[in-house]
Amino acid sequence: MSFTLAELAQRVGARPVGDAACVIEGVATLTGALPGTITFLTNPRYRKHLQDSKASAVILKEDDLPFCATNALVAANPHLAYAQVAALFAPLPDAVPGVHPSAVVADTARIDPSASIGAHCVIGADCVIGAAAIIGPGCILEHGVSIGSATRLVANVTIYFGCRIGQRSLIHAGAVIGSDGFGFAHDRGAWIKVPQLGAVVLGDDVEVGANTSIDRGAVEDTVIEDGVKLDNQIQVAHNVRIGAHTAMAGCVGVAGSAVIGKHCAIGGGAGILGHLEIVDGVTVTAMSLVTKSLKEPGVYSSGTPLERSEQWHKNTVRFKQLDEMARRLRLLEKELDELKKKG
Amino acid sequence: MSFTLAELAQRVGARPVGDAACVIEGVATLTGALPGTITFLTNPRYRKHLQDSKASAVILKEDDLPFCATNALVAANPHLAYAQVAALFAPLPDAVPGVHPSAVVADTARIDPSASIGAHCVIGADCVIGAAAIIGPGCILEHGVSIGSATRLVANVTIYFGCRIGQRSLIHAGAVIGSDGFGFAHDRGAWIKVPQLGAVVLGDDVEVGANTSIDRGAVEDTVIEDGVKLDNQIQVAHNVRIGAHTAMAGCVGVAGSAVIGKHCAIGGGAGILGHLEIVDGVTVTAMSLVTKSLKEPGVYSSGTPLERSEQWHKNTVRFKQLDEMARRLRLLEKELDELKKKG
Amino acid sequence: MSFTLAELAQRVGARPVGDAACVIEGVATLTGALPGTITFLTNPRYRKHLQDSKASAVILKEDDLPFCATNALVAANPHLAYAQVAALFAPLPDAVPGVHPSAVVADTARIDPSASIGAHCVIGADCVIGAAAIIGPGCILEHGVSIGSATRLVANVTIYFGCRIGQRSLIHAGAVIGSDGFGFAHDRGAWIKVPQLGAVVLGDDVEVGANTSIDRGAVEDTVIEDGVKLDNQIQVAHNVRIGAHTAMAGCVGVAGSAVIGKHCAIGGGAGILGHLEIVDGVTVTAMSLVTKSLKEPGVYSSGTPLERSEQWHKNTVRFKQLDEMARRLRLLEKELDELKKKG
Repeated sequence: MSFTLAELAQRVGARPVGDAACVIEGVATLTGALPGTITFLTNPRYRKHLQDSKASAVILKEDDLPFCATNALVAANPHLAYAQVAALFAPLPDAVPGVHPSAVVADTARIDPSASIGAHCVIGADCVIGAAAIIGPGCILEHGVSIGSATRLVANVTIYFGCRIGQRSLIHAGAVIGSDGFGFAHDRGAWIKVPQLGAVVLGDDVEVGANTSIDRGAVEDTVIEDGVKLDNQIQVAHNVRIGAHTAMAGCVGVAGSAVIGKHCAIGGGAGILGHLEIVDGVTVTAMSLVTKSLKEPGVYSSGTPLERSEQWHKNTVRFKQLDEMARRLRLLEKELDELKKKG
Repeated sequence: MSFTLAELAQRVGARPVGDAACVIEGVATLTGALPGTITFLTNPRYRKHLQDSKASAVILKEDDLPFCATNALVAANPHLAYAQVAALFAPLPDAVPGVHPSAVVADTARIDPSASIGAHCVIGADCVIGAAAIIGPGCILEHGVSIGSATRLVANVTIYFGCRIGQRSLIHAGAVIGSDGFGFAHDRGAWIKVPQLGAVVLGDDVEVGANTSIDRGAVEDTVIEDGVKLDNQIQVAHNVRIGAHTAMAGCVGVAGSAVIGKHCAIGGGAGILGHLEIVDGVTVTAMSLVTKSLKEPGVYSSGTPLERSEQWHKNTVRFKQLDEMARRLRLLEKELDELKKKG
Repeated sequence: MSFTLAELAQRVGARPVGDAACVIEGVATLTGALPGTITFLTNPRYRKHLQDSKASAVILKEDDLPFCATNALVAANPHLAYAQVAALFAPLPDAVPGVHPSAVVADTARIDPSASIGAHCVIGADCVIGAAAIIGPGCILEHGVSIGSATRLVANVTIYFGCRIGQRSLIHAGAVIGSDGFGFAHDRGAWIKVPQLGAVVLGDDVEVGANTSIDRGAVEDTVIEDGVKLDNQIQVAHNVRIGAHTAMAGCVGVAGSAVIGKHCAIGGGAGILGHLEIVDGVTVTAMSLVTKSLKEPGVYSSGTPLERSEQWHKNTVRFKQLDEMARRLRLLEKELDELKKKG
């Protein structure tokens, strides 16, 4: 696969500078590039590498052009232009239209002829699989699942009964969608299961990372809106709603009935308690715990800074005395005040 | 599926109030209910919604009855009564008795005729599958695994050799039970594997969440007692013991040889270090880290509160000065004392 | 399976003491041992149990020998000797050489005749499977994956296209290797996928825990060097490099492009932010968050100590006043100074 710089420019709506006929056969990093590849620059901090890069072309902003020693594609949003160029070089999924002979498909499932059902899949009764959808090998869909067109489940994905997945979504291996929410009634010391009768509704253009789990709602549905991006190892509990275009990094945990706004960014390992609301446009930094509703956009954090353990231990012991310290400080202030009045 | 209110009352041992002949066809939330559904109220905070609910009946406590505008089921424990009612409306699992032709079952496996072995399962030598057990599609059992009666493995579950699962347990998709504990001996800078020869023993009425992992013991077994409920994405290390009816929310990590009591509640994302003991009746709040044995029941926490990152950053810098601040505070107290003595 | 003490001594290079002809049929813990088993002592704290142990032999250090009431194997590194002895008693994997008839193997895959491909596996085009490798049941390999000799994928493992796994590695059930890194370009409020074109390269003698995920690189590869041990539920993001013989406990999250040195030990639930470097020989304690490069070996921590929630709540409120407290403390010091000068 190869393209001239001019062809790439046309496809991504960028301006070619230099030898527009130069042939590009792949993408590379700025410092690791070889001739024949195209790379990109978004952060001016790395401008210094422009001189030494062996890439045949660099995607960059107008401002960075003077520093570029080779051919360029000038773009308003170089990262986006790079994403579009890289997509041209990405290999196609291991999939062909049709149902693999080893798949087990219920008679009542409706599968678009352009869809691909991989080896060892299990497709339950009344499932509906859209056009050009790819259900990768080892995926299991219980009854009544619907998969929108051009959505791909990579491999070993499990989707429980009744869940609806939108179009152009991508669900990575090991993800589980629609497992029971964690709902139990207390009965004389034991936990009695509360049946989880809602489903999961996942919008269009959603990405779900490897080994991520999204629980079905208790009564109503758990909802993941359009364009949401969930990284690996995330846990989304029952009745949660995640607003459109919100992104969550790996290992985040969201407790039941939390409602998260649109365009939020949740850092890796963060936790969000249940039954609270987060407005649009909130950023939560890594490993912070959200314990109450956030009613204004902005950046929020919790936690303490990393230190040498020896020093940390001394400070951490003091944390347990913090309330007492605050009282002593207040007392000192009073006493000093009195002393000053006297004196 | 439908029941009269009188039928439901009889099944769950509650008292019908109003039109006992009214027909209930499903469950709903208080605010989302439509006619023909039954809902429930447990928290008096939501009493205000009783007037507007379109539900045909509400399960509630005697105290809340005067505020109810429609039919009711009066129960001592409305949450429990709701769980029992909802179970009547829950769809049955996608399973039929017998072994699916695509399953691979060892000759020496003993499978009860009423059990269901799903598509693409692999059942190893000497496994024993109890009556009415459901081994969902894509599940893999190594040799010598036993599954108690009426236990269900939903899909894509892996159980390693020799693990024993009790009765009426429910293991969600992607769960792994019996993987090797993380045990290595140090040998001149490299790690040499210590074979993990124990198993996992899981009691009756246990629930294991999606993508949760429970490691086998190094020599003796990892033990999950009866009635334990584990949410999704939990990690239980080797030789851990979790006492009966303890519940853990998502993303908890329990390190090796921790012994956790009965009736504990471990919040989401909490961590429990190894080789420690937690007595019965302990609650640990979300994302707290248990670093030493807890010898008395109660509620325990660690961590700092969420703040605007700007403010948090200022406080977090001071955390590193906390020990120094405590010393300066002590010094001030001394100096003020001397000053007061003088003055 | 049984060995005399003399045979075991010879196999692990230890010195038998007592009845070298005594027969050992298994391993046990010091306190749980029965006659016919061998156990080990590494921590002098447990020396007291030597008197009461019913084991037929104990692996221990010379120093502990005088306290041993039974036969012994004296070894310089008893934990290592135990690992070697236990390996003799470990059951072999459920695997036979050859391709299971239910596996789906691409014509262009090259599989060593001594390798085992389990039931319901899917092996993509151009995969290369080395001698004595075991691909357990339900594993899925996309195209172009290579698996080194004597490496084992236990079950339900997914490996994406082009990833290379070394020799003698062990990958536990549910692990996902080579899923897309979490890379998106911003385009007017929406996230546009940046294709992830690198792979994962995993060295020799690596262990990957159950349900752990390792993302492929964006352009270049994610690299896990020789001898690395990753526990369960770990998330490794794109472009990360983990140095040889580093060990990570369960639930760790490593963000994109982090470079971690050799011989590091990362505690359970710890987080490592992206685009930073950690030198060789760093230890990070459980649930700490590494927010910047660590340029010197040593032990690092963050977080606050566990307390009764009531007390913790008081202290945690004060944390939000910490910067203000520091300012008040400084002011007090000044005022007292002035008072002292005056007085």
